[in-house]
Amino acid sequence: MLALRNATLPRTLASGVSRQYESTAAAAVLRGHNRDTASRTNAGQLTSRTQARFVTRSIESNKGDRERVVVLGSGWAGYTLARDLDPKKYQVVVVSPRSYFVFTPLLASTSTGTLEFRTALEPVRSRRTKVEFFQGWADSVDFAAKTLSIEEAVESPWQGVALAGDGSENQDANQLEKEKGVKAKKGKMFEMSYDKLVVAVGCYSQTFGTPGVKENAYFLKDVGDARKIRNRMLSCFETASLPTTSDEMKKQLLNFAVVGGGPTGIEFSAELHDLISEDMAKLYPELMQYYKITVYDVAEKVLSMFDDKLAKFAIERFTREGIDVKTSHHVKSLRRGAPKKLKETASGDEVIKDEASCYTLDLKEEGEVGVGMVVWSTGLMMNPFISKSLAKPYTIPISSAAVETPSDAKSWNISTHPRSGGIMTNDRLRVIMQPSDQKADDKDTGRAIINDVYALGDCAIMENSAYPATAQVANQKASWLAKQLNRNTIDANAFTYKDLGVMAYVGNWNAIMQSSGGDVSGRVAWLIWRGAYLAKSVSWRNRILIPTYWFVNWVFGRDISRF
Amino acid sequence: MLALRNATLPRTLASGVSRQYESTAAAAVLRGHNRDTASRTNAGQLTSRTQARFVTRSIESNKGDRERVVVLGSGWAGYTLARDLDPKKYQVVVVSPRSYFVFTPLLASTSTGTLEFRTALEPVRSRRTKVEFFQGWADSVDFAAKTLSIEEAVESPWQGVALAGDGSENQDANQLEKEKGVKAKKGKMFEMSYDKLVVAVGCYSQTFGTPGVKENAYFLKDVGDARKIRNRMLSCFETASLPTTSDEMKKQLLNFAVVGGGPTGIEFSAELHDLISEDMAKLYPELMQYYKITVYDVAEKVLSMFDDKLAKFAIERFTREGIDVKTSHHVKSLRRGAPKKLKETASGDEVIKDEASCYTLDLKEEGEVGVGMVVWSTGLMMNPFISKSLAKPYTIPISSAAVETPSDAKSWNISTHPRSGGIMTNDRLRVIMQPSDQKADDKDTGRAIINDVYALGDCAIMENSAYPATAQVANQKASWLAKQLNRNTIDANAFTYKDLGVMAYVGNWNAIMQSSGGDVSGRVAWLIWRGAYLAKSVSWRNRILIPTYWFVNWVFGRDISRF
Repeated sequence: MLALRNATLPRTLASGVSRQYESTAAAAVLRGHNRDTASRTNAGQLTSRTQARFVTRSIESNKGDRERVVVLGSGWAGYTLARDLDPKKYQVVVVSPRSYFVFTPLLASTSTGTLEFRTALEPVRSRRTKVEFFQGWADSVDFAAKTLSIEEAVESPWQGVALAGDGSENQDANQLEKEKGVKAKKGKMFEMSYDKLVVAVGCYSQTFGTPGVKENAYFLKDVGDARKIRNRMLSCFETASLPTTSDEMKKQLLNFAVVGGGPTGIEFSAELHDLISEDMAKLYPELMQYYKITVYDVAEKVLSMFDDKLAKFAIERFTREGIDVKTSHHVKSLRRGAPKKLKETASGDEVIKDEASCYTLDLKEEGEVGVGMVVWSTGLMMNPFISKSLAKPYTIPISSAAVETPSDAKSWNISTHPRSGGIMTNDRLRVIMQPSDQKADDKDTGRAIINDVYALGDCAIMENSAYPATAQVANQKASWLAKQLNRNTIDANAFTYKDLGVMAYVGNWNAIMQSSGGDVSGRVAWLIWRGAYLAKSVSWRNRILIPTYWFVNWVFGRDISRF
Repeated sequence: MLALRNATLPRTLASGVSRQYESTAAAAVLRGHNRDTASRTNAGQLTSRTQARFVTRSIESNKGDRERVVVLGSGWAGYTLARDLDPKKYQVVVVSPRSYFVFTPLLASTSTGTLEFRTALEPVRSRRTKVEFFQGWADSVDFAAKTLSIEEAVESPWQGVALAGDGSENQDANQLEKEKGVKAKKGKMFEMSYDKLVVAVGCYSQTFGTPGVKENAYFLKDVGDARKIRNRMLSCFETASLPTTSDEMKKQLLNFAVVGGGPTGIEFSAELHDLISEDMAKLYPELMQYYKITVYDVAEKVLSMFDDKLAKFAIERFTREGIDVKTSHHVKSLRRGAPKKLKETASGDEVIKDEASCYTLDLKEEGEVGVGMVVWSTGLMMNPFISKSLAKPYTIPISSAAVETPSDAKSWNISTHPRSGGIMTNDRLRVIMQPSDQKADDKDTGRAIINDVYALGDCAIMENSAYPATAQVANQKASWLAKQLNRNTIDANAFTYKDLGVMAYVGNWNAIMQSSGGDVSGRVAWLIWRGAYLAKSVSWRNRILIPTYWFVNWVFGRDISRF
């Protein structure tokens, strides 16, 4: 459990699972704006509805007398729950735009080649987990009819890579298309009924509307992101080693910036430094004079979830390793191309060529800085599936809703958190509804519980709790819920969270760890860290592969092949 | 050595290395057509020439009194030679558009997930091989000045994926751009001098101008191709499992066609069948009724390099496993979209959606066949670098050329093979020149040898020999040449080839093997096959990883995560 720590989960669920709803929201916008699309979609729904009956039959055939639990999402919450539910008692159907679960604590390692990408993945379909799987985005839910409509997403261009939110609502398909440079194809729709629904769709990451970040930054939330980062970092070195690259441009290309001083940003910086000092130094000795790693954070301190002693230990390590940590720094924009000052000094031909090969980060405190890559890991943004698709009003009573506090209100909505916008649940993780005209923090007004709809993970907040949005919380909620559902004991128990501590790798075989058992730092922490990661690594397959790669890369060095 | 067999090498060198010259040729065409590009390029060359001096200095610094051997290509011939040359005696500089060597006998395994992609790769830069590396395409060579100009290719969009030739000469950058859907960016140029030059640029694969093949077929020549095939095959199953996919479309999506009955086509079919029968059958049991694998060949028999008994054994295996082998079949075209007959039967909306999701293979003997994927592994086409860039005439005597048969001719050319177009070499693998107006097969006319330019691998043919274009031949030529150069014994010895036999995996842990030692088939052959592959697998890193993956995938099944 120690491996599951703050700011890891948000980035996971934020990725695959959340993209689910990005596209849905996008589609919704499209349908709103575009009558063609609208009619096409309806046609699609009609068609697939007929087919859906056929499929439902085929699912029925092996359903038997089990209840069907539909789980939206394959992140920490969704995957854990789906895996732990008793297949004899429930027919578990996972709906997610990605076919795998990502063991996020290892993502940073895979992005630097310390581990192979697949060692951080567990396919949802497997011989071990007896779950049905449909690769798609939930489009909308009808709590009254207990059905949801799903958009297929097998060929989705966003598969495996993070989508980021800019905090605004204007994310439609065209914009995504521009960003990803791919045609946003609307998938076919089909419907499915459920007995129990679990919403575990996560969030996605916040760029605070900073210009150019969504288009040019590298995120670290899914395995596709890790792959992009690895290839980019290696090609920066390869380009810098070319005779056609000026010394000035070498400095820019090998200047790696990390924005966000949470565990993910810190661990990536540490892994990157390990890679460069242990491997690249041997392969590109002449380039070592040029490289630089800098962590920027808008806050006054990094690793704020750790106490000062541990954070200080981490900073000191970084200082010794030559990694700059710049707090209270503000990013104004990120764009493709070289800084103005460089362009002025370089010859015309140089600029044309160099323009494309690097990025320019504009900081309030430092002005323009030429960088080879910016890895962005800051806050979260609520998933549009929650803020849009689920936001439509209902008329209560509906069969599945138990009214706890009566109200004359005809129109009811899902209760969401005033600040984060997350779904409010009670201590059984069941979704709370409230009269539409009611504020979330109003006291003593209408309140109803949808007994067969649960919400957990990053997109959900349990009332009267202050649990962080972490993999650890999501994982504990999922295990707890699976246990209660398997034993029919949910009405007897309330969920409580047991904080097992936080940990971060800080490079050169060192980690910092903070838990109720006390604080640890240095190699001991590193050993516990690796052990904990290994123990948590879900399948035996990866329990064999991960140490094999640790050994092989330790002896022979990391693989730098690019493809 | 048994692992190196017919039709494997062509596909490797054809890939990474050959793309090198595709783009070069393209660039040449561009420069011809476009004055802007022409001037830009010259500017680029001038700029880089100055920089090249700087770099040459930096290379000089560790050159010492060694001769510089520039090796064009990182395939079987180039990589083996670069690795085997004595770094104390020679400064080895590899120029290739890809940063790694591909161990081609394992490509088919990686394309089906039996092995992880990187287990088939060896980076050119490594702690073990003391070679200098520049990622780029050789643009042109000046045999008189002993210099070559190189176009950088670090960000090349064709990295890691095969380029195919249609036998015609009209391949320019715009066409490539269309095919790959990427912007063909012209890299910067720089120059380098050499003491010895080794041309090992390979061929690329022949589509015989069959319409749609270059755009829609999946090749299996580089690791990027293997990755595309793996993802495509998995997404065909995932799409087929969606309720929105009609039964008719399931048949099309799970109909896998292989064109070309050589060892690569046969081994891929066998590996694909293993994957489906061992893993997909457990994960998608309801889809097993729909899948089909068919091998098409224009010839009357497949595996023509094996004797009839072994070929028959292979065919019988395939028949038992339900793989169709259709000889004397002719492909007319390959296009995206469903066959006409399906479109007629389906509803309007279905067609719109289904169109994109499958391909249609048009056969002379069978008409239109809907397929999920076509893997294309037929013949070779000569590299444009040979047929274009090196085709320019020289005036002899040039310092480095030894005239063996005098001639009054003022204009001399590299001697190329009348049919294949490969560079003719003597039995020391040195390049032969002849008067421009002379036919390659003319007897008793002008003939000169360029003593410091060697050619080997697929793009070269040794006079008075009939060695096949295989990894085995390329590998033996490279080892032989390295040995002679290390010992200065090249004038004393002529290259001779020792045929160590051919082998092909035919599925279900069986292989066929044919060598001077006699023929073997069945499990014994399979054991030798695996052992040979393992022994040949270049680095210790992969000697550890490959059996680990064989074990892990045998016990837990292959990984089906898609990203």
